[in-house]
Amino acid sequence: MAEKEISQAVIGRLPRYFRYLGELKDQGVERISSQELSGIMNVTASQIRQDFNNFGGFGQQGYGYNVEYLYQEIGRILGLDKTHHLIIVGAGNLGQALANYMNFARRGFIFTGIFDVNPVICGRKIRGIEVRPMEEMPEFVRRNNVDIAVLTIPKSEAIRVAGQLAAVGIKAIWNFAHVDLEVPDTVQVENVHLSDSLMKLSYMLESYEQENGLAQQRR
Amino acid sequence: MAEKEISQAVIGRLPRYFRYLGELKDQGVERISSQELSGIMNVTASQIRQDFNNFGGFGQQGYGYNVEYLYQEIGRILGLDKTHHLIIVGAGNLGQALANYMNFARRGFIFTGIFDVNPVICGRKIRGIEVRPMEEMPEFVRRNNVDIAVLTIPKSEAIRVAGQLAAVGIKAIWNFAHVDLEVPDTVQVENVHLSDSLMKLSYMLESYEQENGLAQQRR
Repeated sequence: MAEKEISQAVIGRLPRYFRYLGELKDQGVERISSQELSGIMNVTASQIRQDFNNFGGFGQQGYGYNVEYLYQEIGRILGLDKTHHLIIVGAGNLGQALANYMNFARRGFIFTGIFDVNPVICGRKIRGIEVRPMEEMPEFVRRNNVDIAVLTIPKSEAIRVAGQLAAVGIKAIWNFAHVDLEVPDTVQVENVHLSDSLMKLSYMLESYEQENGLAQQRR
Repeated sequence: MAEKEISQAVIGRLPRYFRYLGELKDQGVERISSQELSGIMNVTASQIRQDFNNFGGFGQQGYGYNVEYLYQEIGRILGLDKTHHLIIVGAGNLGQALANYMNFARRGFIFTGIFDVNPVICGRKIRGIEVRPMEEMPEFVRRNNVDIAVLTIPKSEAIRVAGQLAAVGIKAIWNFAHVDLEVPDTVQVENVHLSDSLMKLSYMLESYEQENGLAQQRR
C-alpha cells in the first residue's frame, strides 16, 4: 500500500506542472516562485504549494523553486526517468495515428510493436515497425520486456484482449476502447474515452446556450 | 449564470451513465434500480442518486428508473438531441484518424469540413470530404453553421488558431493540441491532452512498482 495516498486530482495535475516547467526551462528560466507559477498556470499559489507538499515540497526557499530541479523531480515522480516499452494493439486509424504521433519517445516511451487481427494490415510498416498478427503478441511481450499496451480496438474485443494482455504480464494499459476494462489490480489502466470527452464538450455548449438564452431549436 | 452549478465531476460522469444506459437499452432492459446500476457501473447507489438529483432525480419510484426515459433525458442534458456541425483543423495523422473514427455522427456530431495549412494535403479527400486550405476556414464556418472545431495542430500554432476560431464564431473547441488555450468565456473548451494522459499512466505504473518493491533500475 502507499505510505501516503496521493489524490487522483493531484496526480492529474502533475503532467501539467511538468509541461509548464519544461517550457520555463526551455526559456532559460532558473527560478520561479509559486506566485509566478500561479500566474502562468491559472492555479492558485496555495494550490501549487499544497500539491507539491504531497511530495515533500521541493524546497521552495524565499526566492522560489529551482526550475530545473523541480522539472527533474516531477519527471522522476511521473516515472519519466525510466524507459518503457510500449506496444499498440489495433492498427486501425487511431492506432496508426498514435504510432505516428509518438514523439512520446523523448519521454522514454519506446514504440516497440504493433498488432492487428486483420491480415490485410499485417506486414505493413508503421514508423518502420511491422504490423504483426495478434497471435504473436504474447511471445513478443515476453521477449521484448514490454510494459505498456495501447488499446485501440473496438469495444467488443477490448475486454477479452485486455485480459490476455494482463495474463502475459503487461503492467499498464492505455485504453482508447470505449468500454471500462476489467483487469487485475496489478495492471494499471488509464482511459481515454474520446466519445465521453466530446459529450462533455457538448454538455458545456448546451448548458452555456441554455444559461444565455441562446439554445437552438432541434435542427 | 447557471441557476444551479453542476460540478465538473458530475458532468464528467454523465457520458458514462449515458453509455451504460445505452447498452442496457440495447439489451432490452426496461427498468433498473440505482442498486442494480451501481453493481454494473462500480459506483455507489447513493452516488448515482446524488448525481441524478442534480437534474431533478429522473423520478425513480420504488421499482427503479425507466431505462429508455433516463437514456433520453441524459442524452438531452448532454445536448445530444441537437445536431452539431463540426470541423477538424489539422489534417495530420490524428486529425485524419478522428475524421475516420467519427461514428460520432450517430450522436449528432456531423463532420462537415477539414482544414490544413499544408498544400500537399489540401485537396485530398477524407471520408469523402476534401481537405481545404486554412484561408477558407472563416468563410466556411460562417456559411455552414459550424459550432464545434476539433483542434489537431501543433501547439506552436494552436493558441493563434483558437483565437481565429473564436473570432469567426466557433462555440466549442475540442482541443488535442498540447497547450492550454486562451479563448473568450463564450467559447467552451474540452482538452484531450494525450501526453498528460500517458504520463498519468506512467505515474500509476511507477507508483505501483514503488509500493510493491518492484521498481526497475533505470534501463
